[in-house]
Amino acid sequence: MDRKAVAERLEAMRTRRPLVHCITNFVAMQPTANVLLAAGAVPAMVHDPAEAPEFAAKADALSVNIGTLSASWIDGIAGAVASASQAGRPWLLDPVAAGATAHRHRTATRLMAMRPGVIRANASEVLALAGHQSAGRGPDAADDTWAAELAAGELAADLGAVIAVTCETDFVTDGAAAWRVHGGAQVMTRVSGLGCALSALVAAFTACEADRLSATVAALACYAVAGERAAGTAPLPGSFAVAFLDALAALTPEMAATARVERA
Amino acid sequence: MDRKAVAERLEAMRTRRPLVHCITNFVAMQPTANVLLAAGAVPAMVHDPAEAPEFAAKADALSVNIGTLSASWIDGIAGAVASASQAGRPWLLDPVAAGATAHRHRTATRLMAMRPGVIRANASEVLALAGHQSAGRGPDAADDTWAAELAAGELAADLGAVIAVTCETDFVTDGAAAWRVHGGAQVMTRVSGLGCALSALVAAFTACEADRLSATVAALACYAVAGERAAGTAPLPGSFAVAFLDALAALTPEMAATARVERA
Amino acid sequence: MDRKAVAERLEAMRTRRPLVHCITNFVAMQPTANVLLAAGAVPAMVHDPAEAPEFAAKADALSVNIGTLSASWIDGIAGAVASASQAGRPWLLDPVAAGATAHRHRTATRLMAMRPGVIRANASEVLALAGHQSAGRGPDAADDTWAAELAAGELAADLGAVIAVTCETDFVTDGAAAWRVHGGAQVMTRVSGLGCALSALVAAFTACEADRLSATVAALACYAVAGERAAGTAPLPGSFAVAFLDALAALTPEMAATARVERA
Repeated sequence: MDRKAVAERLEAMRTRRPLVHCITNFVAMQPTANVLLAAGAVPAMVHDPAEAPEFAAKADALSVNIGTLSASWIDGIAGAVASASQAGRPWLLDPVAAGATAHRHRTATRLMAMRPGVIRANASEVLALAGHQSAGRGPDAADDTWAAELAAGELAADLGAVIAVTCETDFVTDGAAAWRVHGGAQVMTRVSGLGCALSALVAAFTACEADRLSATVAALACYAVAGERAAGTAPLPGSFAVAFLDALAALTPEMAATARVERA
Repeated sequence: MDRKAVAERLEAMRTRRPLVHCITNFVAMQPTANVLLAAGAVPAMVHDPAEAPEFAAKADALSVNIGTLSASWIDGIAGAVASASQAGRPWLLDPVAAGATAHRHRTATRLMAMRPGVIRANASEVLALAGHQSAGRGPDAADDTWAAELAAGELAADLGAVIAVTCETDFVTDGAAAWRVHGGAQVMTRVSGLGCALSALVAAFTACEADRLSATVAALACYAVAGERAAGTAPLPGSFAVAFLDALAALTPEMAATARVERA
Repeated sequence: MDRKAVAERLEAMRTRRPLVHCITNFVAMQPTANVLLAAGAVPAMVHDPAEAPEFAAKADALSVNIGTLSASWIDGIAGAVASASQAGRPWLLDPVAAGATAHRHRTATRLMAMRPGVIRANASEVLALAGHQSAGRGPDAADDTWAAELAAGELAADLGAVIAVTCETDFVTDGAAAWRVHGGAQVMTRVSGLGCALSALVAAFTACEADRLSATVAALACYAVAGERAAGTAPLPGSFAVAFLDALAALTPEMAATARVERA
């Protein structure tokens, strides 16, 4: 995995234009769809148990986000995950605020046991999934990055999953190797849904590259480069959200190759 | 129907400020509301079976979009459609991804049988409604425009509906006459929800003009002019979405009269 | 309550960064989250009856908006309100289109009886809550401001609540004292979700200031100043929505102290 590989993964994703089946929260639906479209993938939001399993087998990847849980949605998620797994499609779990309520913790734990290929989370969520005490009350991380990285490594090895802990510097591991992705911008935390949308973009990359670790690092790296470029011209959150979509759409492989990724 | 008629329909809609009852998908709700407000109509999203029928009779038009289906929403839609029909209000069907799953196909077919005044769809969706084999997997069209136009003409005649097949060049027919609307911009396909929002705008125009064919052509033509103008200054998807709302709000009857509509 | 107090309330809110539990409608979820983040608070959307009560006790304030009612959501709201009240957390009610359907009126009345600390509404909604005949069909106000102010005063005294009637000039009362907040911009009515998002921002301010009346006035005043500034550079709705988030994020206490508030 090097800078050139980031550029190659981006090109592969753009060429394939993967159809990403997203079951995500109400807040993030629109930014998720717009991020996928800007980056070059195709979003589809389908959650109902009556059709989510059928659709998951047709799509190229599945991205599951538990931000705004509902009972019937959990059934749709479980059916879609089973179907995607059987059809050999990669699926990703974004366990939003996993430790915030008992119900949410149970649901995240249940989904984790269904063996996602990738988990993208913040430090508090990873700690919650690993059964540690976590300081996170809501959607924001409030915990020690270092403790989360340790927990991520253990969880990844246990589950056979790639775990991406996103933060000021992202940390990605499959339990054996680990990478750090630098870049992005502080203002990204002040635009709703960008973390959730990143999850869907990681799913898009894993649809086009069997090596889930490098696909995940590449997606995060493209996001970080686009975020940094956008924040350079638009430091405030309203205009940043607009500039970020433009930057994703305008991101060339050459720009992607400026990503700052390194072995952890 | 000529360019002048496009400008007149726009002015009539702006003067009336129709209240458009929208039952639409979660991704498109916000862009739909913003498109209606920018263009000069008033949106209201009401889906629950406990109130959707009552509300449909009070609103000026109903726009139904099946993007993110749920069982209880289908009940709300059926009740609202029955109520709107009884109250003599026009209603429109946007059969998102009609062929993508069996459940979706059944639902779209059931709603089609309730006789919408207008159906707005892409080529794949029209073919699916007409019972043809369709290549569409998700929300995107992937089929032959020509085959879809033929199917649209037959469906329109059968149902007594106006059918708008939107694409690079739009095609609108009531089974007897047919029109093409040129314009718009490729970048519109990279902003989530703009097609769905167009459906609601067509519904707004049909609330203000009894001739559904010319109302539909006029709404599509205004959209195409605004899209073309916005893309001229903002070619990337993030800034385009912003510029497009501005262009809709700033669209004068004179600008609308530059629309490129022609008899098919 | 004076201009200096507006600036102090803003600083207090920014320092505290309150976690605001929002149960709101699908259209307003994303603008609500973005407004809170831009202003300096932390949003979390949690609606399911299985977790909303637990979450409400952990958050700093609860904002309830009935825009897109569903049966299961009403259960979640009722549970969250009971829990927030028991935990001593402030909660706010935004009774969207309270008079538009019988179901909506019943729900708004039921929630009002649960004693919100603040109600933010337009003139039509306040009149509907007070049991008056109202001309509002949809989400827009269509009634006499003066009648609504009278009704707001009576309701506020009856309920022990602060009532904010937002309009071109806002009116805020606790039944004893009353204030007017000038400013804002006409274009704010053409951007979907901004009124709903304001409700959540009021909730954020009440989390940081026990005097609910002055907290509400301060939140409205900050919104009005930011709206006026944004409209000065971006008069059209698409670019206004972007500029408004930027203006909220860039709002200094000095700018907030230019608010035009006066005793009514």
